[in-house]
Amino acid sequence: MNYKLLGKILGKIMILEGVLMIAPLIVSIIYKEYSYAYGYRYILAFAIPIVVLFTIGILLQIPKPKRRSLYQKEGFALVATVWIVMALFGAIPFVINRDIPNYIDACFEIMSGFTTTGASIIDYDITSLAHSSLFWRSFSHWIGGMGILVFVLIFIPESNDGSAMHLLRAESPGPQVGKIVSKMRATTRILYLIYIGLTVLEIVVLSAGPLIQYDNPAIAGSVSSNDKFFHALLTTFGSAGTGGFGFIPNSMEYFTPFAQYTISIFLLLFGCNFTLYFLILIGKIKDVLRSEELRTYTTMIVVAVGIIFASLLINGTLRTGGTEALSVEESFRHSLFQVASIITTTGFSTQNFDMWPQIAKVVLVLLMFTGAMAGSTAGGIKISRLVIAFKGIYVKIRKLINPRYVPKTKFEGKTLEEKTTNDVFAFISLYIFIILGVTFVLSFDGHGFFSDFSSTLACISNIGPGFDFVGPYASYADYNYFSKILLTITMLIGRLEILPVLILFSPRTWKRT
Amino acid sequence: MNYKLLGKILGKIMILEGVLMIAPLIVSIIYKEYSYAYGYRYILAFAIPIVVLFTIGILLQIPKPKRRSLYQKEGFALVATVWIVMALFGAIPFVINRDIPNYIDACFEIMSGFTTTGASIIDYDITSLAHSSLFWRSFSHWIGGMGILVFVLIFIPESNDGSAMHLLRAESPGPQVGKIVSKMRATTRILYLIYIGLTVLEIVVLSAGPLIQYDNPAIAGSVSSNDKFFHALLTTFGSAGTGGFGFIPNSMEYFTPFAQYTISIFLLLFGCNFTLYFLILIGKIKDVLRSEELRTYTTMIVVAVGIIFASLLINGTLRTGGTEALSVEESFRHSLFQVASIITTTGFSTQNFDMWPQIAKVVLVLLMFTGAMAGSTAGGIKISRLVIAFKGIYVKIRKLINPRYVPKTKFEGKTLEEKTTNDVFAFISLYIFIILGVTFVLSFDGHGFFSDFSSTLACISNIGPGFDFVGPYASYADYNYFSKILLTITMLIGRLEILPVLILFSPRTWKRT
Repeated sequence: MNYKLLGKILGKIMILEGVLMIAPLIVSIIYKEYSYAYGYRYILAFAIPIVVLFTIGILLQIPKPKRRSLYQKEGFALVATVWIVMALFGAIPFVINRDIPNYIDACFEIMSGFTTTGASIIDYDITSLAHSSLFWRSFSHWIGGMGILVFVLIFIPESNDGSAMHLLRAESPGPQVGKIVSKMRATTRILYLIYIGLTVLEIVVLSAGPLIQYDNPAIAGSVSSNDKFFHALLTTFGSAGTGGFGFIPNSMEYFTPFAQYTISIFLLLFGCNFTLYFLILIGKIKDVLRSEELRTYTTMIVVAVGIIFASLLINGTLRTGGTEALSVEESFRHSLFQVASIITTTGFSTQNFDMWPQIAKVVLVLLMFTGAMAGSTAGGIKISRLVIAFKGIYVKIRKLINPRYVPKTKFEGKTLEEKTTNDVFAFISLYIFIILGVTFVLSFDGHGFFSDFSSTLACISNIGPGFDFVGPYASYADYNYFSKILLTITMLIGRLEILPVLILFSPRTWKRT
Repeated sequence: MNYKLLGKILGKIMILEGVLMIAPLIVSIIYKEYSYAYGYRYILAFAIPIVVLFTIGILLQIPKPKRRSLYQKEGFALVATVWIVMALFGAIPFVINRDIPNYIDACFEIMSGFTTTGASIIDYDITSLAHSSLFWRSFSHWIGGMGILVFVLIFIPESNDGSAMHLLRAESPGPQVGKIVSKMRATTRILYLIYIGLTVLEIVVLSAGPLIQYDNPAIAGSVSSNDKFFHALLTTFGSAGTGGFGFIPNSMEYFTPFAQYTISIFLLLFGCNFTLYFLILIGKIKDVLRSEELRTYTTMIVVAVGIIFASLLINGTLRTGGTEALSVEESFRHSLFQVASIITTTGFSTQNFDMWPQIAKVVLVLLMFTGAMAGSTAGGIKISRLVIAFKGIYVKIRKLINPRYVPKTKFEGKTLEEKTTNDVFAFISLYIFIILGVTFVLSFDGHGFFSDFSSTLACISNIGPGFDFVGPYASYADYNYFSKILLTITMLIGRLEILPVLILFSPRTWKRT
């Protein structure tokens, strides 16, 4: 292992995390969260880790690595380490300012942030948290959305030996790293610009219209309309990263219909493969329309919204807390929003969907497995993998029917190689094994099979809320610490698509070869 | 398609089914189930289908096929057709004698029998059924256990073109057909002799000791001790085929501890790959001890029994209907029995395990996925597939850590080829897709996610009872007819390990090539 180079890259990322933490520090100052009475703990919460991160980060730059390249295993192990280190340091502010006094809880929360899961252990009034804490939580979604390491690629000197490629392969979601991404750092920058552009656009749109029902009696006392821009920022961070942390009670139930529609649309946009936007920018709109994954994504959304919409209309689901049935417009809005939120593995909710008809819940469970497009900020198995798997099964059946059949199956215009199909099947099997294994271990903590299963699924697919015990209006607070650590690792496994985490924990990785 | 040859084989099987139906007809006569008052319906119930089966079966022998061999696709399609035809005719007796008046219900019940699932739609008093009906239900388990077509292989002229091989491959459970089976019909006969030998042994042992608590007030009025041998027969059919139909109230709750222990042991024996017994017979005991699948099977049983035993001791689960906690011996016996029953995908129960602690239920759910050894009468994914999958994942990780790594992985002493591993991953993915898909469709009928999921799992893995709505003391009666038909197909998909059924329903199979 090239520890010196690994340390150097890790150090750079620690410095980067320190820089990123300046943002919540500024928020803290803007909202005047400094007071001698509290021992300046809200300021120190960020100031201390920033200093520590800078110090360690700079110290790690001193050793001179002999080899300037990384092997594949080093790339994978590094990526997993980076995310864990980010979470270990990112959790410190919550402990210092006592918004989340327990360190394991804080690690769960921030890992849930970075992995864009959005599962929360906060079962107390969310509005009691400092503005800086709420900002750091949601900001971590935005940081994690496009991957922490992709940031770093911009700083790493370009090399032809594939080091950068190894890192990208370990971190980028989806079965293949798009050519555009892998070819050069320049396009990584473009992808970031698209990400930032969409983010800014969402902030602008959300700020322009009515955002939250500030006069709703349920929240009027604790949520101030003066914070509207702050809320627009947090909403955008959560949706751009497809994270899903809420910051007022009941997730997005008290948001205005305008905001709910806007967020639905942006969620679906962030669930698209970013290279499609790149193609639009360079005028290749025909290529975009030809994308099989985009077509499948669109079809799935239409079908899912249709089924849930119909089920809500037929069942006349009640308004939360009321006795009135949902109107047609409300049924449609909630269906659209929930499908957008779950297929992109975000986890925001405008209704307690745990109370919805069973068919609606099953549709949501299925979307929790699939996730959105590869190359987006979403989690899950990814639609491209499913399309490849179905094509692979089709080929297998054709071959059994006619042994001389030579498959000419294509995916996105390219011949689908058998190796790709096999990798996808292996991935899906492994995904299922991990879900079953984690559900099994969780059941020692015992909150019911469906709760534990949906917790696991919600964590590995980076969604956040599940059903029953961990429904959208519940939290993960009541799991014991062992279960919380397990779920924290599960989120990371999901975000990094399994292999980097397995490689990090494999003894072979650390043997001298 | 070589319709004439296919028809000829199908005809032979219909004749065979007619012959097999003579057994319940005899039972009907022994128990004097003929009476003018009932319009002789119990006798006619079997007499009519026997005549029909013989007639059609003989007519199908007339055309002379031009080609005397089968292509692979024909083999697969034939196997699926045979099972469906067997069920369509096997259901007729229940309708004629009105024990199951609805034909769809009757098809569900007998398909559940032939596929050795043991799921039942009977929600009325099981003891109200005629002896001949009870016999035919349980006998169908025994027939289905070793596969219907394997019977026929004994009659088919040996050919070198692989026709027999294609049939076996389509019907035999497990990732590979053992060499012993595939080489020659002679060994098929030996496997049958082993099956029959174990069956006879179980009948003898069960008849020798106390079988059922005939004086238990819960059943004393409806279950007669005069029928002891009949009950021993039915119990043996159900356990040899790892089927699981009960024939007195509450499955095996009112069986004696002696019988419960005996059945547990025989279940576990029937869950072993039959070629192991063949190896024992020819004195290759060392080979048996070296079997990785056997070791994994044993380990899984010990661990599962251990966990469930501990959970029952700690939770002090109550005796059904009583207030007393289970004794240590009872806890152990019920743990052993339930693990044996579920890992072999039988589905008998000695307690309402749906009321057990969550951890025990989760262990049972996991065993429902795995099933027992390949080459046994059990269903599920099969342990050998899991072992292969885990080895495949290990190889993948090793390759990522060191790209020059050349895998020398072995399974059962032979080099594990990549194609085998890939097929296993594809199988597992397909298995999961089907479970999710069927659960989705079932949810339109809506009995709760966990119920629908466990129904699907219980049917595809050929277990029978699931949890909640379809718990061991419940039935499938309340699903609507569409759901019942879907679950009937799901059982067949599970028994034939997916591909034959898919091939039968694929339009390409029926195209001229």
